[in-house]
Amino acid sequence: MRRHHRCVIESDDTSESGGSDSDIDTAMRCISCREEYLPRDAGTCKECYEEAGETEEELKREIEDLKAKVSFLRLDHVVVHAGNSRSFTDVVLIASHDDGAAAAPPIPAHKSVLVSRSPVFKAMLENEMEESRSGTIKISDVSYDALRTFVCYLYTAEACLDEQMACDLLVMSEKYQVKHLKSYCERVLVTKLTWDNALMSYAFAHQHNAKQLLDAALSQITGNMDKLAKREEYMELVEKDPRLIVEIYEAYLSKQVNTAAGGTSTS
Amino acid sequence: MRRHHRCVIESDDTSESGGSDSDIDTAMRCISCREEYLPRDAGTCKECYEEAGETEEELKREIEDLKAKVSFLRLDHVVVHAGNSRSFTDVVLIASHDDGAAAAPPIPAHKSVLVSRSPVFKAMLENEMEESRSGTIKISDVSYDALRTFVCYLYTAEACLDEQMACDLLVMSEKYQVKHLKSYCERVLVTKLTWDNALMSYAFAHQHNAKQLLDAALSQITGNMDKLAKREEYMELVEKDPRLIVEIYEAYLSKQVNTAAGGTSTS
Repeated sequence: MRRHHRCVIESDDTSESGGSDSDIDTAMRCISCREEYLPRDAGTCKECYEEAGETEEELKREIEDLKAKVSFLRLDHVVVHAGNSRSFTDVVLIASHDDGAAAAPPIPAHKSVLVSRSPVFKAMLENEMEESRSGTIKISDVSYDALRTFVCYLYTAEACLDEQMACDLLVMSEKYQVKHLKSYCERVLVTKLTWDNALMSYAFAHQHNAKQLLDAALSQITGNMDKLAKREEYMELVEKDPRLIVEIYEAYLSKQVNTAAGGTSTS
Repeated sequence: MRRHHRCVIESDDTSESGGSDSDIDTAMRCISCREEYLPRDAGTCKECYEEAGETEEELKREIEDLKAKVSFLRLDHVVVHAGNSRSFTDVVLIASHDDGAAAAPPIPAHKSVLVSRSPVFKAMLENEMEESRSGTIKISDVSYDALRTFVCYLYTAEACLDEQMACDLLVMSEKYQVKHLKSYCERVLVTKLTWDNALMSYAFAHQHNAKQLLDAALSQITGNMDKLAKREEYMELVEKDPRLIVEIYEAYLSKQVNTAAGGTSTS
């Protein structure tokens, strides 16, 4: 049973003027978009509208404060000057390949920064291991560009990543346990998800414990189950790592069960 | 004018559909605070209410992202461990007093951090001056505690300041041109402004080019002009630096003129 709620406005006789009874018949004008609307499309009262505006102002001020803090804490200068004698660096990183290609130029950095950003560098540099004594950290299986972008991120918390670079840095951030960067790479890769790369992304996410990316890829895949078995990557995965395929079917089934349960509860 | 608000609840036997003409007679219930209101107190339409909610969610997400960035960029670890051999520091700061008191313990730090936070340290350390060669920076006229808080702020962009410490750090941040800290100190001092400290704060702000604090103190003072001349600090300032008192009167006059102009335009 629905109920209508009808209100009757009565003016005091003593009133001077202004709000007559005709107020109630007036369609309202939204303070925000200035359009007229009817009671059934009503949102907030004036007081809540004003409060919401204040909240928004406060949030924006907080954002400005935080942006200023980020800009204060970034070590841009150091990156720009890294490599010249005035940057006080005490370690270099070198991208090394096993294939014996010519060594890439060393990338200078500060032990204090590496140590504060990565527990792996911390263990390496604080425990007087080879890298700490020599002041040289060799990073294998990574390109010079990827390593430079990685180091730059450690100083600035910023990077502009294409899909390939996001994959490379996700691998590095997993290896060196730089959680903040890993999460950023995952978010970049989630925005690049399509049906065409969903299976590869899913397998990649699995391999590198990238939960955000895994969930997004799985959701993309389970929404296209009819096309799944026709894909080439599907066949490859069945051969190479069938457990991953099993997990897809499990996720699909659990989604179906949940949907059915949801349907029941709202009907 | 007072209005009586009488509500009648009617059950509706027939229709399930909402928007009949009778809608217009219905008092609305605010989606946000759940209170009933009348058309003259209407705020937004439903669509704008929902949009505002989304905006708020987005702003909150942005705040979370920025907080994570700040926490990534802070160099807490370094501060905690500064002083032990594993923190890779390459410079110490010493609070020195001209009065020949016993020297305070040195505070270890990183040239790279000092240089990136302060143009004064940058010039000092990059130009092979005495401080750079010796690895020791003497800071005069400052307590050990203030210097330690100052250095800590350079690493973390955070400090918990009482009024005295905010004054001390404002002076240091002015001297070493650490704008972010100076602005923070000013904001702390603005929150501590009262009529009792307004004149001292005003003179202090003047001395250290603290515009935010100056404006706030001036506004406090010009709102209490009747009591101004009776204050002890007033007499002292008239003796010591009468220009400051002149500026107060000028600000008061300009405020009066503006108020009058505002009054005229709205009358």
